[in-house]
Amino acid sequence: MSPKITVELLRQLRQAMKNSKYIAEPIQAYIVPSGDAHQSEYISPCDCRREFICGFNGSAGIAIVTEQHAAMWTDGRYFLQASQQMDNNWTLMKMGLKETPSQEDWLIGILPENSRVGVDPWIIAADQWKNMFKALAGAGHSLVAVQDNLIDAIWDGRPHRPSTQLITLGLRYTGLTWQDKVTALRAKMSERKISWFVVTALDEIAWLFNLRGSDIEYNPVFFAYAIVGLSTLRLFVDQKRLADPAVREHLQLDTTSQPEMSIQAAPYESVYTELLAICAALGPKDKVWISDKASCALTQVIPKAHRTLIPYTPICLAKAVKNATEIEGMKMAHDVHFINLQIPKGMVTEISAADKAEEYRSQQKDFVGLSFPTISSVGPNGAIIHYRPLPETNRTLSLNELYLIDSGAQYMDGTTDVTRTVHFGTPSAFEKECFTSVLKGHIAVSAAVFPNGTKGHLLDSFARAALWDSGLDYLHGTGHGVGCFLNVHEGPCGISYKTFADEPLEAGMIVSDEPGYYEDGSFGIRIENVVLVVPTKTKHNYRNRGSLTFEPLTLVPIQLKMIDTDQLTKRESSRSSLSP
Amino acid sequence: MSPKITVELLRQLRQAMKNSKYIAEPIQAYIVPSGDAHQSEYISPCDCRREFICGFNGSAGIAIVTEQHAAMWTDGRYFLQASQQMDNNWTLMKMGLKETPSQEDWLIGILPENSRVGVDPWIIAADQWKNMFKALAGAGHSLVAVQDNLIDAIWDGRPHRPSTQLITLGLRYTGLTWQDKVTALRAKMSERKISWFVVTALDEIAWLFNLRGSDIEYNPVFFAYAIVGLSTLRLFVDQKRLADPAVREHLQLDTTSQPEMSIQAAPYESVYTELLAICAALGPKDKVWISDKASCALTQVIPKAHRTLIPYTPICLAKAVKNATEIEGMKMAHDVHFINLQIPKGMVTEISAADKAEEYRSQQKDFVGLSFPTISSVGPNGAIIHYRPLPETNRTLSLNELYLIDSGAQYMDGTTDVTRTVHFGTPSAFEKECFTSVLKGHIAVSAAVFPNGTKGHLLDSFARAALWDSGLDYLHGTGHGVGCFLNVHEGPCGISYKTFADEPLEAGMIVSDEPGYYEDGSFGIRIENVVLVVPTKTKHNYRNRGSLTFEPLTLVPIQLKMIDTDQLTKRESSRSSLSP
Repeated sequence: MSPKITVELLRQLRQAMKNSKYIAEPIQAYIVPSGDAHQSEYISPCDCRREFICGFNGSAGIAIVTEQHAAMWTDGRYFLQASQQMDNNWTLMKMGLKETPSQEDWLIGILPENSRVGVDPWIIAADQWKNMFKALAGAGHSLVAVQDNLIDAIWDGRPHRPSTQLITLGLRYTGLTWQDKVTALRAKMSERKISWFVVTALDEIAWLFNLRGSDIEYNPVFFAYAIVGLSTLRLFVDQKRLADPAVREHLQLDTTSQPEMSIQAAPYESVYTELLAICAALGPKDKVWISDKASCALTQVIPKAHRTLIPYTPICLAKAVKNATEIEGMKMAHDVHFINLQIPKGMVTEISAADKAEEYRSQQKDFVGLSFPTISSVGPNGAIIHYRPLPETNRTLSLNELYLIDSGAQYMDGTTDVTRTVHFGTPSAFEKECFTSVLKGHIAVSAAVFPNGTKGHLLDSFARAALWDSGLDYLHGTGHGVGCFLNVHEGPCGISYKTFADEPLEAGMIVSDEPGYYEDGSFGIRIENVVLVVPTKTKHNYRNRGSLTFEPLTLVPIQLKMIDTDQLTKRESSRSSLSP
Repeated sequence: MSPKITVELLRQLRQAMKNSKYIAEPIQAYIVPSGDAHQSEYISPCDCRREFICGFNGSAGIAIVTEQHAAMWTDGRYFLQASQQMDNNWTLMKMGLKETPSQEDWLIGILPENSRVGVDPWIIAADQWKNMFKALAGAGHSLVAVQDNLIDAIWDGRPHRPSTQLITLGLRYTGLTWQDKVTALRAKMSERKISWFVVTALDEIAWLFNLRGSDIEYNPVFFAYAIVGLSTLRLFVDQKRLADPAVREHLQLDTTSQPEMSIQAAPYESVYTELLAICAALGPKDKVWISDKASCALTQVIPKAHRTLIPYTPICLAKAVKNATEIEGMKMAHDVHFINLQIPKGMVTEISAADKAEEYRSQQKDFVGLSFPTISSVGPNGAIIHYRPLPETNRTLSLNELYLIDSGAQYMDGTTDVTRTVHFGTPSAFEKECFTSVLKGHIAVSAAVFPNGTKGHLLDSFARAALWDSGLDYLHGTGHGVGCFLNVHEGPCGISYKTFADEPLEAGMIVSDEPGYYEDGSFGIRIENVVLVVPTKTKHNYRNRGSLTFEPLTLVPIQLKMIDTDQLTKRESSRSSLSP
């Protein structure tokens, strides 16, 4: 890995920071966040601006360029990678270390008096803007919204924003027409006295309209905004995509039987002016919903008195609870046993094994693509939690080391995500001990019975108790929400020791159950199923609350030879009976 | 219970609201919160202003009186009691019900334009003030600090603020001199570049100076404020208390060998003017610590640029971790077996049993008083979680019903809190089943092994898993911090599904472990021990974090006949071996 040479790019960016073509008055610093305008976890190449300017291509990082300095903040997962990918024009700011200044403190420390700091308001969230604005203002500086993105201005050959073909999903896959979904959404809006809802998250738009795209790798979404009124419906999307007769028919663009279901289609970029126009016509009591993670640009269009920020949108909540058709689809998608428990003939590496798994999956019915980059790791590579095999790290599967594979795919009817850890030879006693403790935690979560209304974070310790007993642990959450032919990570539910952002579990929600153990330099173990929240009958029913438990959707076997059966209780043994 | 007649009181209060003796311009509403100026959980009779004005004497409630209306907000525990204690001049506002307006919304709905709403700034926390201020301002009204408390103004025969004799605690009880504690506190202040710390919580002042009082029932504290500077030390307390030679000697008031340990004593009321004077002399970089729960009056004295609000003060954190002497004292205090497992001869009632328990305790060495009102409840009364026996509810102990007693005392060397549930005849299968599930939860917490740095809320579900399995639960937290000859409820640690305000558990912290089950109209079960957080050795030691577990301090036996041993695992049986 050699660093990206950024001398010339930084020179051009610093010129742009003074160029009246982009901004009336020069700015003394420019912030380059790493996201897109839709709070996406994965982003499209055209949005990889922070990578373009500094060379670092990890998933998290913020770059700031001043007239004299250039610095990039990232967290512990990426210290090594960032230091290898950035040249010495850049200072690596190691987040989480005591001596590392915050972006605000660093700026305040080096900026001349009364400086102007610029940022693209489309890729900074409203609350981040607010915090930065306050901190800078307190030190006499100002934060300035630069409408033209200055990275785009200097980026020769920047990829176009993708505009892939849209896939229409019929009732067979969705269980509900988009009109049904709009009607239910409007009912929620009326109930809360909300006149407009600005939809900014790509998976929410895809879910609402029963459409999918492939604008972003692994996530079957497409670039769009939507604004839902009580009797109008606006979709902002590249107009070329709407030429497709199947899409026109699906969205009923040429039929106007129900005026309140008639979609006004407009170009992607026109969301701003349209929202401005809507806000100019608001009545005194009109309220507008927007996600509290939406961009500063769109959020600030809505006058404060009319703006209602919500942590979880009603679409996010509705999408999380799968209907019968979606559950059926998720079960179909999981009806696959792709892991070979014998070591394959010939030389097999992490990369070739991952390719083989993908090839196998791609032959399944309704396969669309992977749902995330496959983690295929041998021995010590397994201890790197977010490992992805590269030619320079690629190890060969052997009889001596543990093999961990975490892989998932998108199918027309559902999304999968499964991790198994296997040994092709004879595992050590310590490997078996750790594996069995992880399995006990996995079973403890899957078998948990808990009252309706319980939040996922209350189940997290069940996954850790067996590990804690012997002084072990893992430094990640236990589970995340899983979309249905949508993003493999979705809110608003999950199972984690972190308690933010965690709505109560409900029957129909789908989450992963994936405790692990990682021995640095030796091996990694993770056992992951996707599980469905289902109602369950209990002997009693305190306050008529009703109880829930989980039903595993994943059908891949767990390797028996990894289990130290003496560690298991009878009840645990019966729960792991899926394993051949 | 007959309601308090408040016609005349309300007339007087409404006059006071227009009386220029108290306030320059009339106010249209007056808020009466229920606390004292120190965020105390229990309050002194002189601070029971909300009870005085409306008659309702529960622990939580806020009254608001306008020119035409009077309303009182309380939560579900108190709906019945409040409706019985208040006359029809008052509207009961049932918090938690959808149709109940917030105080802000109610005020905004009924106030004339540009109204002025008054409140005593000493008994409203700064953040509550801020929220109310904003909400009212948004509707064109203003919130006004009324320095003279208007309830006190109309309260004939209001009890005096107590000024009980102070008890000095030597090293034998505290393990650290107050000078040691001040030195450690100043070190923390220097480390965080803090010049002053305004101490407002009564138990923090008592702990810091190794003094105790009896100004508030059950809590061995005394009314005071302290302001700790890096080289000065101010104690604001009724000066009469300092006439006692033992106290003078303890505080070294007449010896000035160490100037930075010389205490400047001043009257309780002078804290305001002294803090004003200190703040007037602050340097540009001086920072002042104050609890984020402190009164609006004191908080707002500190200019915003110098104010550092803290959720947990360094005293709160230091006090929670008991030293070896305190731990020894807590063990001594718990060395008592007060529960009789046979039904006593003659007629015994909830009240006489509670009295008997107190009498027994009072004969123990170093007994000072109870640490909370004893909960002594038979049969259905046991299902009322915060039950306190009264002549009109008093039931007789019998061979047919469960008996629950939750009692605790203050000793010079420690504070106790224990709950046991017993049956003097033959418990039903359901009672045994519930009891055993509660016991399993109790043991699961006590026996839990968890890494250093774990927060208590991560252990809460361990206490519930057995109950959840059969569809049962309890609607309270599992444990609270316990003071050492101090408040029986203290922060900053605890074990609860609620995750606010919960610092990581550390060796030396002391908490309760008290799951329960309550069958409305039939019985209540709770099993409570006080447990000490202790380091433990585990087979492995992931990332050298070290592990913790609990050591029970409570030695009271658990009744064997209540246990369905078939429900217990071998491991659980061995942990419940304390029970004879």
